[in-house]
Amino acid sequence: MNVTGVVVEYNPFHNGHKLHINETKQITDADLIVAIMSGNFLQRGEPALISKWARTKMALNQGVDIVLELPYVYATQHAELFANGAISILNGFGANSVCFGSESGDIKDFHRLIKFINENETTYRESIRDALKKGVSYPKALSFAFKKLKNHNQVLDLSLPNNILGYQYVKAIYEQKANIKPFTIKRKEAQYHDKEIPKQSIASATSIRKKLVKEQDHLNSINHVVPSTTYDELVQYRKMYHNFQDWERLFPYLKYKVLTSSPIALANIYEAEEGLENRLSQTINEATSFQSLMEKIKTKRYTWTRLQRFCLHTLTNSTKEEMSAINDTTPYIRVLGMNQKGRKYINNQKKYLELPLISTISKINHPFINIEKRATSCYSLGYSPIIQAKLIKEEYAHPPVII
Amino acid sequence: MNVTGVVVEYNPFHNGHKLHINETKQITDADLIVAIMSGNFLQRGEPALISKWARTKMALNQGVDIVLELPYVYATQHAELFANGAISILNGFGANSVCFGSESGDIKDFHRLIKFINENETTYRESIRDALKKGVSYPKALSFAFKKLKNHNQVLDLSLPNNILGYQYVKAIYEQKANIKPFTIKRKEAQYHDKEIPKQSIASATSIRKKLVKEQDHLNSINHVVPSTTYDELVQYRKMYHNFQDWERLFPYLKYKVLTSSPIALANIYEAEEGLENRLSQTINEATSFQSLMEKIKTKRYTWTRLQRFCLHTLTNSTKEEMSAINDTTPYIRVLGMNQKGRKYINNQKKYLELPLISTISKINHPFINIEKRATSCYSLGYSPIIQAKLIKEEYAHPPVII
Repeated sequence: MNVTGVVVEYNPFHNGHKLHINETKQITDADLIVAIMSGNFLQRGEPALISKWARTKMALNQGVDIVLELPYVYATQHAELFANGAISILNGFGANSVCFGSESGDIKDFHRLIKFINENETTYRESIRDALKKGVSYPKALSFAFKKLKNHNQVLDLSLPNNILGYQYVKAIYEQKANIKPFTIKRKEAQYHDKEIPKQSIASATSIRKKLVKEQDHLNSINHVVPSTTYDELVQYRKMYHNFQDWERLFPYLKYKVLTSSPIALANIYEAEEGLENRLSQTINEATSFQSLMEKIKTKRYTWTRLQRFCLHTLTNSTKEEMSAINDTTPYIRVLGMNQKGRKYINNQKKYLELPLISTISKINHPFINIEKRATSCYSLGYSPIIQAKLIKEEYAHPPVII
Repeated sequence: MNVTGVVVEYNPFHNGHKLHINETKQITDADLIVAIMSGNFLQRGEPALISKWARTKMALNQGVDIVLELPYVYATQHAELFANGAISILNGFGANSVCFGSESGDIKDFHRLIKFINENETTYRESIRDALKKGVSYPKALSFAFKKLKNHNQVLDLSLPNNILGYQYVKAIYEQKANIKPFTIKRKEAQYHDKEIPKQSIASATSIRKKLVKEQDHLNSINHVVPSTTYDELVQYRKMYHNFQDWERLFPYLKYKVLTSSPIALANIYEAEEGLENRLSQTINEATSFQSLMEKIKTKRYTWTRLQRFCLHTLTNSTKEEMSAINDTTPYIRVLGMNQKGRKYINNQKKYLELPLISTISKINHPFINIEKRATSCYSLGYSPIIQAKLIKEEYAHPPVII
């Protein structure tokens, strides 16, 4: 049986995602599509627009057979750790292929790149170190170092965001010796960070979120870029939860956290380094919004994403010690949802799975789960007290969504 | 020169307080009235209705000559530690008398009581311990133990709240060998916890606060129980700050704090004992308001006030270790405000004061001040971001109010 994994955020699920699923099925000849999806918080260090359950429904309604959760400890990390987590869970779940979007679109590029970087490893690492000393951000340093390598322009362009992520998936497969074959599809039309909704039917998730958060009444304006099932889910979500989530709703809690934490406590937060926590403490009082805080703490040294992730770990009180669990802890497989085909697969496979399978988390004792629960608590605080209680109850006791 | 201290909260200043000042001046023959006033948070573990600066103005406008701050580390404690702090600062400031309201109204009662309890100390302590073992609250245990002492009914009734506080002031004077003569005035008319505004001109601060918080538009209904200067200050405050402060506005932050703290971190909070912190963790998710939280965690063992104080220390992240500083740290004298007479006194006396005198705190490094700053940060979060910044700036840089 051909089980294909896709690594997703679906924030929210849109026509581009639908296209990716269709193309994936074609090129991998998949019998089953397993999406491994980030939960409440995303790789850019942001809360998801809508709950993991609503996003799971959106995926199942559009051809995904099983949705697994990518735990917070992986989902809110830079590309390498993010990819490592996703590949290890997909591998443990028995996926035998993975398909990702990239600017390149040719999987041979990725295999060649792995070989090329292996051959140039020493030079590459030295150049990265030199570039970092000059005070540029980590992604910039990677890009500089790569461009200094002889013949780099004969392999994949590693300055493009989806090529980077794809490279990390393929690298993780090699390093973990995972029994997974990678595939890639060329990304079309919408660029990842587009801010405007185009007239055609494919738009970036960024532009869709922007529209939904800023103009909560204008669901109509995104109607043509999402499947009707997504649209209906968004309408229903807004009706039940009253608002979509964003950082500004959580900002008061971040502010409170920074104002009441000791310097030592802040320095122990994951990703606090080089006095970043002092920068946060010193500017928090002047900031009247999350946006203004970010503008105040931004420097050349750190990317916006890196800083958002640090703010997020501060909000969720995720310490260096706790997060170091990813180095030596076997992950679990948490099923967020499945259709009937997916259910059959799980029932047949569950005794052969290499990782523990969990559905509701209330009774699970696992270091990742403690962080997950706390992340959900923080996520819920962006809503009214009654919705808060509902979201937390869902986290603890929600069975997988079944369609 | 006759300097008389009064220990106050002025939350807000009302006609009863005015009466107390007038009577104090008469019986102590005071040349100068020094009020030592709690800052942002009060003995009952609640935020003050309005800022310390507004309350300072109210006091100066009605015959108080100098207002000093009772630091958070003393102001939010049970009667004994509260009184110890107030007396030590008043003594260090050169007050030679103190005048407090009591149900008794006769200072001889207090001297006799000190002697009586000293004589029965062993029996008294044993009875307190026995009562506590039965699971009653600390104040109840004190009262039981006192009532078991032979001839207790021939001395002061220690089951009345103002007699208890008065006893602690007089005891602190004895223990500290303070050069202070205590006086007391019989409390009239309004009972401390009255909830309704009476027709006459004296009402309890509790009833006034209730009116102001519940019906923020009905300032008129308290007009006859406060001096016109208080009324004007309240009107102006509401205009500038948009709302009066209460626990409900801070509840979301308490909830966040409890949800994101480790069990160890909560157990380290000051006044966490006998699993109180677990009770808080276990009920916080069901609570949709501070009131409902309090009702859920209330037991026979702890008074409402004791529980509110624990919630407050949790909110301000005040740990056992930090708060233990009161045992071996010399306090400072922080002047919140003064009139011209008060100013002259301070200018003449400042070189003779036994404690360090501070006005603005921005550059002061003192363990109490760190807690004070954090308390102000928490207090400010009950307001809009712009008011937050204003309140925090005031805390750091506000010079004493001078009228």
